Amino acid sequence: MNANTSLAGLAVGYDIPALPGMGEADIQTPCLILDLDALERNIRKMGEYARAHGMRHRSHGKMHKSIDVQKLQETLGGAVGVCCQKVSEAEAFARGGIQDILVSNEVRDRVKIDRLAHLPKYGARISVCVDELANVVELSAAAQRRDTTLECLVEIDCGGGRCGVKSASAAIEIAKAIGVAPALKFGGIQAYQGTLQHLESYEDRKARFDDALGPVKAVLEALRAVGLRPELVSGGGTGSYYFESTSGVYNELQCGSYAFMDADYGRVRDKDGNRIDHGEWENALFILTSVMSHTKPDQAVCDAGLKAQSLDSGLPVIHGRNDVKYISASDEHGVIEDKRGVLRINERLKLVPGHCDPTCNLHDWYVGVRNGKVEVVWPVSARGKSY
Amino acid sequence: MNANTSLAGLAVGYDIPALPGMGEADIQTPCLILDLDALERNIRKMGEYARAHGMRHRSHGKMHKSIDVQKLQETLGGAVGVCCQKVSEAEAFARGGIQDILVSNEVRDRVKIDRLAHLPKYGARISVCVDELANVVELSAAAQRRDTTLECLVEIDCGGGRCGVKSASAAIEIAKAIGVAPALKFGGIQAYQGTLQHLESYEDRKARFDDALGPVKAVLEALRAVGLRPELVSGGGTGSYYFESTSGVYNELQCGSYAFMDADYGRVRDKDGNRIDHGEWENALFILTSVMSHTKPDQAVCDAGLKAQSLDSGLPVIHGRNDVKYISASDEHGVIEDKRGVLRINERLKLVPGHCDPTCNLHDWYVGVRNGKVEVVWPVSARGKSY
Repeated sequence: MNANTSLAGLAVGYDIPALPGMGEADIQTPCLILDLDALERNIRKMGEYARAHGMRHRSHGKMHKSIDVQKLQETLGGAVGVCCQKVSEAEAFARGGIQDILVSNEVRDRVKIDRLAHLPKYGARISVCVDELANVVELSAAAQRRDTTLECLVEIDCGGGRCGVKSASAAIEIAKAIGVAPALKFGGIQAYQGTLQHLESYEDRKARFDDALGPVKAVLEALRAVGLRPELVSGGGTGSYYFESTSGVYNELQCGSYAFMDADYGRVRDKDGNRIDHGEWENALFILTSVMSHTKPDQAVCDAGLKAQSLDSGLPVIHGRNDVKYISASDEHGVIEDKRGVLRINERLKLVPGHCDPTCNLHDWYVGVRNGKVEVVWPVSARGKSY
Repeated sequence: MNANTSLAGLAVGYDIPALPGMGEADIQTPCLILDLDALERNIRKMGEYARAHGMRHRSHGKMHKSIDVQKLQETLGGAVGVCCQKVSEAEAFARGGIQDILVSNEVRDRVKIDRLAHLPKYGARISVCVDELANVVELSAAAQRRDTTLECLVEIDCGGGRCGVKSASAAIEIAKAIGVAPALKFGGIQAYQGTLQHLESYEDRKARFDDALGPVKAVLEALRAVGLRPELVSGGGTGSYYFESTSGVYNELQCGSYAFMDADYGRVRDKDGNRIDHGEWENALFILTSVMSHTKPDQAVCDAGLKAQSLDSGLPVIHGRNDVKYISASDEHGVIEDKRGVLRINERLKLVPGHCDPTCNLHDWYVGVRNGKVEVVWPVSARGKSY
């Protein structure tokens, strides 16, 4: 180590894993890296798709939790704004200057509702989902008190089995109440079918989507029958956006994972049977990890375990390597099968995480690389914002 | 909401889920809460146990990642210092004034070794594990360059099958090299058997420990035969500390989970067949969550999903409730079976997380409560410090 690299060593590694201008080999591991070329191609591609199909694209910020990635989605990909799941995420995006924010979730806590009602003062259009009549009164009272306007989307449970109303009559009742409530505006319908997104087969996803579309159409017809016109019919994800955008029913997409991809989406097939990370999208997100022990001839240990990634959707895949395999994780270690003993201490590997959303939520920084150099280091702005 | 509670609502919720003095009902969810009475009882109890058995207790900071919890373990529980797994964690503890820090893991990256060698300048005794001869030279060179001393423990793989040497001859070779290397001190042996800790049956854990003890004894005998005297023989966890402390071989414990407990350790039985969270230790850590949707009569949705907890060791358990059950999690939601429809919107539940370590690593704050009031709000000082 010469004096200059020693200084570089001092400057990084304390509270940030890399600095712009640094070579990829000097990044402190484990950390998230973004292939900026791949990221930009994914973002442009989704933007072009949405434009060609006459759809608004509201990129899902719950995935990346990053103001910088969101702004790239708006400038390069024409995204109209962001959606997110928590008031604390919406606060982070509002502070970052994002102008159109949908909390695609219900907000019921008294203090949270007050925080939400404050957010239009940042200059942003703020929308939220509703699935119970009582919530309309709560939201209206808070927005009046704050002297703001909240837009409300009625959430339809179209098969996810989680939040949202099941019946058209419940949806109509809530939509009418929003329509007449002071300081609220009826914004339309939220109808996201989350359980179909990761089904491997295109046909299975299509069948599940067709099932989902029925209740959405029923609600829309009932709304029109009472003279309510929803501005937005919003939903769709990386595994289904082509269904929503050709349905004649939806007018806004909410895709998130397409920008980064992950190993779980890598198992999903397109209509021709090809993996969607082999052409439709590219892997842009990786966990950079280093080999840090290799005392057994056929097994190496790397420095990325459970605290560097979420294993809810399976183990990570080692990118570009067929000779070694990530086989188990403990809190701070990953065990790598290395049958031929090819790995060396400090060798770097790029892991495609099993599930991008909760993995990004573990890290403070995205290290953006291009041509082997660190170009940007972006904070994961809403990391840990779950409340 | 009156003017005062509205002001309270403004003060919290933006970047912190609670403030000291606040009632438990006003905490913004989901967040980690600590039952301070239970925490203090756990900490005192382990301290008394260690003292009664003539053992040093080096509390494992990888679990809580908190300078405040560590200081409580030192002042109330007589802990001699901390162990942790990453240089970035050691940096956080050194900055917080902790005086004796063991990185119970190997450090191989050039910059990381330099960062480690810098840490004694904080006034702390710094130790690290070694499992390959080449690392001795690297550590010695860095400590010389920094004009510091690093203590090195030879790590024995006593059944974990991850890092550490298997043979006494390899251990002796490394220990000798440490002994003669400039700026290093041979500190002893690290021998932690992680795979036994969570076995449900006491007899199974005992059998696994007896297997682990063989290689440790063999190394110690071989060390004595060449005139090397290890100051520390360190290891043990919440599922095994009574074995190490009565082995006549170990002199330092490294327990972590005992302080907080979790649902996975709740399945572990003591020698009388009782759950270790029913008497031996108390649940002190909870995820406070709120019901935020209940559109199905027999199912509620709460606001704590995958981003508020790690599910690597199973689903959380709802504390003190037999009438409702947490049955599945998605990124931001938990689905709760509520067969009798007893839950109400905004009702608070306390979840015992499946696995405390990676769950704590998701949050920025511990909200410490006593008698229904928030008493302290502590940062999770080393959260996300994986590099």
